[in-house]
Formats: sequence, structure tokens, C-alpha cells
Amino acid sequence: MDTNLADKAAHNLQAVRREKPLIHNITNFVVMNFTANALLSAGASPVMAHAPDEVQEMVELAGALVCNIGTLSDEWIKSMELAGARASSLDKPVILDPAGAGATSLRTNSALLLLARCGISVVRGNASEIRAITERIESTRGVESVDTVDNAVEAARRFAEEKQLTVAITGANDYITDGDRRVYVSNGHALMGKVTGTGCVATTLIAAFSAVDRDAFTATTTALSYFGLAGEIAAQAAHAPASFATALIDALYTITPEKLADGARIELSQQ
Amino acid sequence: MDTNLADKAAHNLQAVRREKPLIHNITNFVVMNFTANALLSAGASPVMAHAPDEVQEMVELAGALVCNIGTLSDEWIKSMELAGARASSLDKPVILDPAGAGATSLRTNSALLLLARCGISVVRGNASEIRAITERIESTRGVESVDTVDNAVEAARRFAEEKQLTVAITGANDYITDGDRRVYVSNGHALMGKVTGTGCVATTLIAAFSAVDRDAFTATTTALSYFGLAGEIAAQAAHAPASFATALIDALYTITPEKLADGARIELSQQ
Amino acid sequence: MDTNLADKAAHNLQAVRREKPLIHNITNFVVMNFTANALLSAGASPVMAHAPDEVQEMVELAGALVCNIGTLSDEWIKSMELAGARASSLDKPVILDPAGAGATSLRTNSALLLLARCGISVVRGNASEIRAITERIESTRGVESVDTVDNAVEAARRFAEEKQLTVAITGANDYITDGDRRVYVSNGHALMGKVTGTGCVATTLIAAFSAVDRDAFTATTTALSYFGLAGEIAAQAAHAPASFATALIDALYTITPEKLADGARIELSQQ
Repeated sequence: MDTNLADKAAHNLQAVRREKPLIHNITNFVVMNFTANALLSAGASPVMAHAPDEVQEMVELAGALVCNIGTLSDEWIKSMELAGARASSLDKPVILDPAGAGATSLRTNSALLLLARCGISVVRGNASEIRAITERIESTRGVESVDTVDNAVEAARRFAEEKQLTVAITGANDYITDGDRRVYVSNGHALMGKVTGTGCVATTLIAAFSAVDRDAFTATTTALSYFGLAGEIAAQAAHAPASFATALIDALYTITPEKLADGARIELSQQ
Repeated sequence: MDTNLADKAAHNLQAVRREKPLIHNITNFVVMNFTANALLSAGASPVMAHAPDEVQEMVELAGALVCNIGTLSDEWIKSMELAGARASSLDKPVILDPAGAGATSLRTNSALLLLARCGISVVRGNASEIRAITERIESTRGVESVDTVDNAVEAARRFAEEKQLTVAITGANDYITDGDRRVYVSNGHALMGKVTGTGCVATTLIAAFSAVDRDAFTATTTALSYFGLAGEIAAQAAHAPASFATALIDALYTITPEKLADGARIELSQQ
Repeated sequence: MDTNLADKAAHNLQAVRREKPLIHNITNFVVMNFTANALLSAGASPVMAHAPDEVQEMVELAGALVCNIGTLSDEWIKSMELAGARASSLDKPVILDPAGAGATSLRTNSALLLLARCGISVVRGNASEIRAITERIESTRGVESVDTVDNAVEAARRFAEEKQLTVAITGANDYITDGDRRVYVSNGHALMGKVTGTGCVATTLIAAFSAVDRDAFTATTTALSYFGLAGEIAAQAAHAPASFATALIDALYTITPEKLADGARIELSQQ
């Protein structure tokens, strides 16, 4: 266990609860309610805004921006580009969720476009989505991974190094790298895969912690260990997906910094 | 306590359960599911429709219209304008939720445009949103208030008087005025602020009661005391946001008119 | 009771859990989260995609397509048409939910257009929606039926025969016909009418079973008995709408094929 990163996670959770950062989400229709509630329970403040006429103004108020392409269309991509470029010019973190990259060329290309133009600081996806971006392997089945985290690790590390950003691959274990540092987070529970939008929640929590921790790598390890721990706690109370989803959001609210410092399972990786 | 207004609330709840008014919502993506479920539990019938080609036809079937600008875009504003104008010409109540007014100029201007063109009968917002409209103070942080209800009260009363409509400012206590009458509703619970869309639910419940009570002021006091009481009941069963949200909708369903007459806390205000 | 159809339902549930079919949904904003979670709990894999630029590519990956017009606009209808035509040319099942047909002419006409152009295999609606399509009786109130299943049965049977598809009318009892065969499914619970999107969940479950059972009629009887049984189980645990909705999704997850074979109530109809 890396206790420094666990302590950092506890510190970051305190900071989110104290500073209540505003997180601007341009995200998909399926998860808007769920991710907004996750942010509120974590202690952050969500706003969803996608009109090209207002995204630049909105992102100026925000501590971080989420671009999630889960139900994209041309106009929404344009809004993400506008908001991302403005956020980046203001040195605000921009977190990309390439939901479904690898399933259609529109999704893969949109993710690559945003990476090229928006100063992305963290990309979070499942193994198939990350491989679609880092290796151009088009294998995603809808928004579901058909690949294992381990298979995506090496190309992710190279991509992170080359593009100078943090890549997070979520799955049974999560892998996080900024090209130099790399860790596995082993918190989590299998029922998280039975609730739609848990990946998107992970992404928006990365944004929340990025707003208070300018080290994108440690903001990401915080988010994924905190969310995984919430999954473990939820699974003690609930054994089926919908009651589990309720317990999951509740756990984001009840986890204390101390509990997170104790429960975070973050290990250095050799890969 | 104003027992007349509490009795009126009980009477209005009976009427909604009996008449099951159809409420046409043009609202934001984040809360559509939550507000539809709130209306169903209250006893009303929700419909969401935003296509410019159908909103005028749909609103003819409805008892009231909600215009909520929480995730607006140009086309949706146009639809709200079309539906609002038709509703107004048919003498149906139109309820405005200026979600995020004061955060971006698009939102403030859209709210003002709808106020100018749609015969709005009630505006409900948090203190910052209401001040953005009544005093042009642009201070909203995303969709979150940075102001107190008390600071917004005086301008709200003048605005209500001048525009001949009802203004509701929701917060720890809710303030409601039609320019002449003014009350505080002290029902509610702090966890309501930890669930996304509770403000939007308040707005859509105002619409439901406006469909059965042509006095917009008493329809509004009914909605806010009823919803606040549901929050109090939910807080007895649940101590974290997601289970609280479930209990909140359940409470809308289980509150009887008698319970509402007993539990409504509505007081006359001197301001 | 038709035990053959109940056994077929059990067999189909096993097949969905084994094959995890990808279900492509072009559906309304209100229910996206709820229907995605229903599919996951049933054992299928949901994806929501509506961009005209990607729907044809996405549907190639899918086992079935849902077109639901609940919050339609021109562009979404175009996407449904594109995806439906492609799905049909690939011999994949296309399931239509004419949500709100009969309430506005845009909805009725859109449903008829999709029926004419997309090789629809199953239409599922409430009595008013089905009558809007099969008899051009425009009586729907928002998305709520004002008619009884029995009144819609005869025209539905003729329509199914003429168009060579399956029609499902859901209500207190569900009626299903392919023109030749016809049954009533009497599973279900009244609280299902107090949760938004239960009809849409029924539709998407029909798609899930259609992806593993090429007989659209038995796929539909499976979906409606399975979902109705989930409602009965949920009602044992919960007595108000929001906790009921949670228990309903949970029940989709916990129902075993054996439980479904025992609990399915499907009876042959003479009509």
C-alpha cells in the first residue's frame, strides 16, 4: 500500500468538502442526474451546461470541466471544444471521458479531436475505450469493454508520457499513470458494473478532486480509491443494482477523510 | 401559523389527487426523471415535450406549463416561448424556473425574455437567481445560490407587484409574495440541498397546484409547504442524500391532506 | 396458464443472461437512466446513441434497436429512421414505443412514419397510443392512456395481421398478438403506473429478449411476464413509488429462470 497516496486522498476529500468546487459537466443524457448527485454527495457543486453561447462563460466560474462523449452529437462536441479551450487557457483542469470510443468512428474521432484541442489533463475510460485512443484498436461494444485493464496498460503509459497527461483505465482494478508514476487502485465492487454511469461518476469525481489538487495524478488516485471504497461500503448494505446505486451515493456522503485514509488501496505498479 | 393557508393546502392536495392534472414540462435534462416521478407521486400526470412542432398542441391538453432553463439552448428557449405564449392565451398558468439565472448572460436574458413574452404566473428560484431577475445582480454560482433569502425579499416583492405575478424564493425558509400578500414557509430539511433538482421539483409542484387553484399565491404556498413537509418526513427515515431522495418522493405519495393541514408551517411576513 | 410460454420465458431469460445482448436505444430523455439500469439488471448491455452520424454504425454492433418517441424532435426521428432502416436491412429486430402517440399529431405521424419505413417487429404502447396508430383515434392525454386495453384489442389484432408484426398493449392486463396468436399477461402491480418510464422499460426489455429469441411474439410475452413479475416482487418490499422503483430494478436482477417459469401468468385469449 502507498500510504502517502492514501493520506493525500484524505487530504483531498477534506479540501473538496471545504471548498465545494463548482464542476462544469458537458456530459451524456443518461448519467446527468446520477453524476450531479454524486458530486453533491462528495461535497462539490455540479452544473450542467452545453449551449455554445454559454459554455465559455460558465466554465470561467468552474473549478474543473468534464467532457463526456456518451451521447454526443455535432453541436455538443463543438460546445466541448469551446469550453475545453477556454478552460485550458485559464489553466483549469479538463477531464475527458471517451465513453464509447472504439464503438463508432464518430466517438473515436471526437475523443481524439478533444485531446488535440483542449489541453486535457486526465482521460478516464475502460480498457477498450483507452485502447481505441492510444492504439486505435476499435473493439468497444457499445460503452462496454471487451478487453482487460492489463492489456491496455503499456500503451496507456506511453500515451500519457507523450501527451503529458494522466490516463486512468478503470475495471476490476484501476490503473493510473502520468507516464512516470503508475499505480493500481484495487478498491471497488463488481456491482458497480451493473449500474449505468458508474464510469461517468468516476470521471466527474476526478474533476472534483482536480479542482482542489493541481497534481492530476494524485487527484485521480484520490477519486478512484474514494469511489471504489464507496462501492465496497455500498455492497455491505445492498445486494442488487438499484439499492446498491442508492447506497453508493450515500457512501460518498458518509465516507470521512479518516475512513478514506484507512480504506484506500493504492499500490505502485512496475508496468 | 396561518391556518387558512394550511387548510387551503390540504384542499389543494385533495384536488390534485382527484383531478390528476396534466403538467407539461419543458425542463432540463438533469431533472426530467426526478420531476416526473415527483408529479406522479403527488397525484398529477407529467408530460415532457420540447419539439417546436408539438409544444403548442401539447400545452392545450395540459393544466399548467413549466419552463425551466436549467440546460437551455436556443431551440429550447424558442419552444418555451411558443408554448408559454399559447398557454397564456388559453389562460393556463405558466411557471418559470430561472435555473442558473445570474450565472451566464444567456440564462439571465432567457429568463427575462420568457417573463416578457409568456404571461408567467409564478417565478421560483433561489435567492441568487431571483436577484438576477429582479435586481440584475449577477452572482449565481452555477445553479447554486450565493445569497440569502432575506436579501432578495424586498426587490422580489416590488417585482411581483409591478409584474403582477407571484415570486417564490426558496432556501432555508421560503418566501412567497404576490406583491400584496407575503409569507414565509418554514417546512423543509437541509438534505434537500444535497439532492440535485429539488428546486426543480418545487417548481413543477407549483405547476401541479396551479392547475387546480387559480390563485397562484396559494397554489405556491401549498406546493412549498407540501414539498418541505415531505423533506421533513424523509429525514426521519434517511440520513444520506440518495436514500433521502427516495424517501422524499415516497413522502409526496403518502402525505394525506390531513397530514398536510397539520404539518404546513406558513407564516405571514411583514416584509 | 400457458406453461409452454412460461417455460419459453425462463429459457429466454437464461439466454439474455448468457449472451448479454447489446441493445441500442434511441429513446426519450426522461427514461434513459432507468431503462439502461433495467437492461443491466436483466443481464443485457445498454447503449444510447442518437447522432445521425453514428446510429447506423452503432446498430451494427447491437442485437436489437429501440425507437421510443417520448421526447422526440425532427433530428431524433431522422436518426430513428436511419438506424431502423439499417437494423431492418441486417435483419435485426426493431421495437417501437409510440410514447404519446395520439396526444399530438407530430407523435402520431412520427410513429406511423417509423412503422412504414423501419421494418418494426414489435410495437408496445398503452391502449390510447395503440388506438392512435391502429384506429387513428387521437385521445392520449400526454403519455397517459384514457382507454382500456379491451377496447384496443380487436383493431390491434387486425393491425398485427396486416402489418405482420407483434402488437403489445400494456395496462392492468397486457394483451399481445401477432395477428394469429393472442394472449393476456396478468402479471404486474398498480404501483408500476406511479413510476415514470415503466412502459419504456417494458419496451426495452422486449428488445432484449428479441435479441435472443427471433420469435417476436414469444420475446414479447417473456418481457411482459418477467417485468410484471418483478413488479409483484417489488410490491412485497415497497409501498410507495420511489422505493418501489428501486425494488423493481432489483427484482429484475434477482429473478431466476425458475422463478419466472413459476410466476409467469400468460393465458390464451379468444379475442
